[in-house]
Amino acid sequence: MAKIGIIGSEGRMGHALAQAIAAAGHELSGGVDKGGDVAGLADRSDALVDFSAPSALESNLHAAIGAGIPILVGTTGLEERHFAAIDGAARAVPVLQTGNTSLGVTLLAHLVQQAASRLGNEWDIEIVEMHHRMKVDAPSGTAKLLGEAAARGRGIDLAAQSESGRDGHTGARAKGAIGFAALRGGTVAGEHSVILAGEDERIILSHSAENRSIFARGAVRGASWLIGQPPARYRMEDVLGL
Amino acid sequence: MAKIGIIGSEGRMGHALAQAIAAAGHELSGGVDKGGDVAGLADRSDALVDFSAPSALESNLHAAIGAGIPILVGTTGLEERHFAAIDGAARAVPVLQTGNTSLGVTLLAHLVQQAASRLGNEWDIEIVEMHHRMKVDAPSGTAKLLGEAAARGRGIDLAAQSESGRDGHTGARAKGAIGFAALRGGTVAGEHSVILAGEDERIILSHSAENRSIFARGAVRGASWLIGQPPARYRMEDVLGL
Amino acid sequence: MAKIGIIGSEGRMGHALAQAIAAAGHELSGGVDKGGDVAGLADRSDALVDFSAPSALESNLHAAIGAGIPILVGTTGLEERHFAAIDGAARAVPVLQTGNTSLGVTLLAHLVQQAASRLGNEWDIEIVEMHHRMKVDAPSGTAKLLGEAAARGRGIDLAAQSESGRDGHTGARAKGAIGFAALRGGTVAGEHSVILAGEDERIILSHSAENRSIFARGAVRGASWLIGQPPARYRMEDVLGL
Amino acid sequence: MAKIGIIGSEGRMGHALAQAIAAAGHELSGGVDKGGDVAGLADRSDALVDFSAPSALESNLHAAIGAGIPILVGTTGLEERHFAAIDGAARAVPVLQTGNTSLGVTLLAHLVQQAASRLGNEWDIEIVEMHHRMKVDAPSGTAKLLGEAAARGRGIDLAAQSESGRDGHTGARAKGAIGFAALRGGTVAGEHSVILAGEDERIILSHSAENRSIFARGAVRGASWLIGQPPARYRMEDVLGL
Repeated sequence: MAKIGIIGSEGRMGHALAQAIAAAGHELSGGVDKGGDVAGLADRSDALVDFSAPSALESNLHAAIGAGIPILVGTTGLEERHFAAIDGAARAVPVLQTGNTSLGVTLLAHLVQQAASRLGNEWDIEIVEMHHRMKVDAPSGTAKLLGEAAARGRGIDLAAQSESGRDGHTGARAKGAIGFAALRGGTVAGEHSVILAGEDERIILSHSAENRSIFARGAVRGASWLIGQPPARYRMEDVLGL
Repeated sequence: MAKIGIIGSEGRMGHALAQAIAAAGHELSGGVDKGGDVAGLADRSDALVDFSAPSALESNLHAAIGAGIPILVGTTGLEERHFAAIDGAARAVPVLQTGNTSLGVTLLAHLVQQAASRLGNEWDIEIVEMHHRMKVDAPSGTAKLLGEAAARGRGIDLAAQSESGRDGHTGARAKGAIGFAALRGGTVAGEHSVILAGEDERIILSHSAENRSIFARGAVRGASWLIGQPPARYRMEDVLGL
Repeated sequence: MAKIGIIGSEGRMGHALAQAIAAAGHELSGGVDKGGDVAGLADRSDALVDFSAPSALESNLHAAIGAGIPILVGTTGLEERHFAAIDGAARAVPVLQTGNTSLGVTLLAHLVQQAASRLGNEWDIEIVEMHHRMKVDAPSGTAKLLGEAAARGRGIDLAAQSESGRDGHTGARAKGAIGFAALRGGTVAGEHSVILAGEDERIILSHSAENRSIFARGAVRGASWLIGQPPARYRMEDVLGL
Repeated sequence: MAKIGIIGSEGRMGHALAQAIAAAGHELSGGVDKGGDVAGLADRSDALVDFSAPSALESNLHAAIGAGIPILVGTTGLEERHFAAIDGAARAVPVLQTGNTSLGVTLLAHLVQQAASRLGNEWDIEIVEMHHRMKVDAPSGTAKLLGEAAARGRGIDLAAQSESGRDGHTGARAKGAIGFAALRGGTVAGEHSVILAGEDERIILSHSAENRSIFARGAVRGASWLIGQPPARYRMEDVLGL
């Protein structure tokens, strides 16, 4: 049982994290929000989970370093200087930064990379995702993460070889391209499929989330896994031993 | 057993039609191509199936009228004057013109129209299709046909309320819109799904073609059904009694 | 805005109903449980929703008759005498009894019946469902309901022509049979697919529930629809105008 | 370009192999059937592909050894003594024996094993497959192969922990079990899905065959890959470098 502290405790993710900490049999050491005492929270925690804001990242990292405890960073919208700060902190304490804390998606990305690597580029790769009607951008961050995994497996540059938003006279599919399509509707929490389409056969690798609690659950699993690891920068793949 | 003649007998569709005529227990009365004797073919047939070219349509219709037999027109790329010619011919003989001769797709469109009509516009409608890598346009003609069925069920104008090619910052989904997405890859003969996404539930209505023989089979079923019908313009829905 | 009373208010369904009543803009006139004052609740309600127990059904129907208000009965485990009591009550007030209050499933069953009716029995029908790991019976009640709809469309007796639990040397599929398969795992709220498999093509009609709130929502929609209807026995199909 | 000989050349698989050899740019060195001159065929070939009968296996292996060329064995119904003969031959020439020559299925099984290994047994595993209406046994050989891969990943004995043919009162799912379900209908060439269902999320790994040519194509790829390998017994996984 670990004592886990939440930075960014009042949003929807904060509440989900509190539930996930309890469900996993850990103890919630406390939660802080904008202007709160992160250093105090760190002192009474075994690990921190940060889903707050980029502007708070550096002081949050300092709090973790001060207390000598690991920190999992799930904050989005990070820029180059934030990544540099994370690299710096990872010399002192274990730090796991990720844009997607779902263990299922993490595993799926790993499988996609392998499939793309083993099957030659006569297999076309398409990524299709569905999310609720309020989502404002496309493709989803997770679709991009899966596309990056496929591109890594293929040894290609995703930006140079992706096709998205097909509409009208598109011409035949570019050989080796990775395609993206986005569906929106209802209250769908998130579904992603990576289709590898070859001659007369297809492999489809999919992930389906019933609700958003999986992100909180994965974050808690990641944070507790970090406890006892040596200082370094970690990825979600490490939590699964991939 | 009916004697069925093929106009446009040498292309891939012509060969598929010849097979489908035999498989259905009918007799192939003959086949003609560009410059062939359609009137002679009509005289020894109970029905004609035309998958040739728009430029030949009017003389093909005249041949059917001359022999007093029905004609099924599956030719694509028709324009206003062709439709006018079809309406004219339909006063003399049974004529069925359609852009999709699959019975499965015909039934699916009928179900989509009903579902769209019964579920209010708080259910979002998305249409996603996958075809082989050589297809040069998106969405597919069948996807549009399904979208038209949904729009008819909703009582809306599809052109004014469709979203396709989502990519980048799209904003939230427009209420009542019908969305389209296109996947391309491998040798997929054709798959279409119409998703009706409501609050916490989805209905998905799909069609999957294993190969293109279904179009020939449906055309033969349509042509044989036309025999004995009174002169009129028919749709594939009529063949299924919808 | 209608005043809706809940019989069986303390179970999971009771709580879901209270939320659904509020979400739909109606008023919760109150809730009773075993031994509670149903007659009093009926007097201050425009409609009752009963998800309690078969043993309480008759007195609940009397309360509705006494107050002259409609009642929706979602109680499961009913027997012949309960159905007789429902028929009796339906001469005095509107009564809707159903084993599945989801509007999506209701519509799907309607579409399945039509598809089965239009496509001859050279199209094989399979029904596959997935539910969470705790479910103790197979196939699900909803799968059976969909199978009944298909059998009705075909004009066959489901009990005499169903195949389930295929395992080992089964022999070829019986012509005209309706097959069932059950998947169990995780926390899946409920997914059902009806597959119509013909020569080289398939139609798949599916429903997917993200959680169980859809049953409460449909029950509330049904109860409010009943208000103002003449006394009769109704089905969920009537609520959708099917 | 390799010269590949077919043992069992007159069946459906034999014809598919001849096409696949040509399509891959190889040369068909010849084909023999029951009682034919396999040794002569071996002498003019770079590799043999055997889809004949168990009774012919030993003499086919001898022919390969005599000519010093590799052999791919896709014959089904092998027994212990056949496997012993294969092991013996593999000391002299490269031998690849497999019950499934599809590269896609081979890769899928590899991914399934990994997924099962990384996700603990709080993730339930279900395998569902669909095949054409004439298939006489369930689950399919490929479904079992995928189940074996999952069991290997989990470190469990499949026979002791599988559930199939769910029907009636089944009780809750056994923890750690691998479930199987079989769908039959139409002309489906073969579809398999392995579902890993966890708390609030699912990973689904699927393979879909449009027709049976993929088995011939994979066999040809396997046979040509064997040429130049040292004598040993190989698996399809080796062809993909897994």
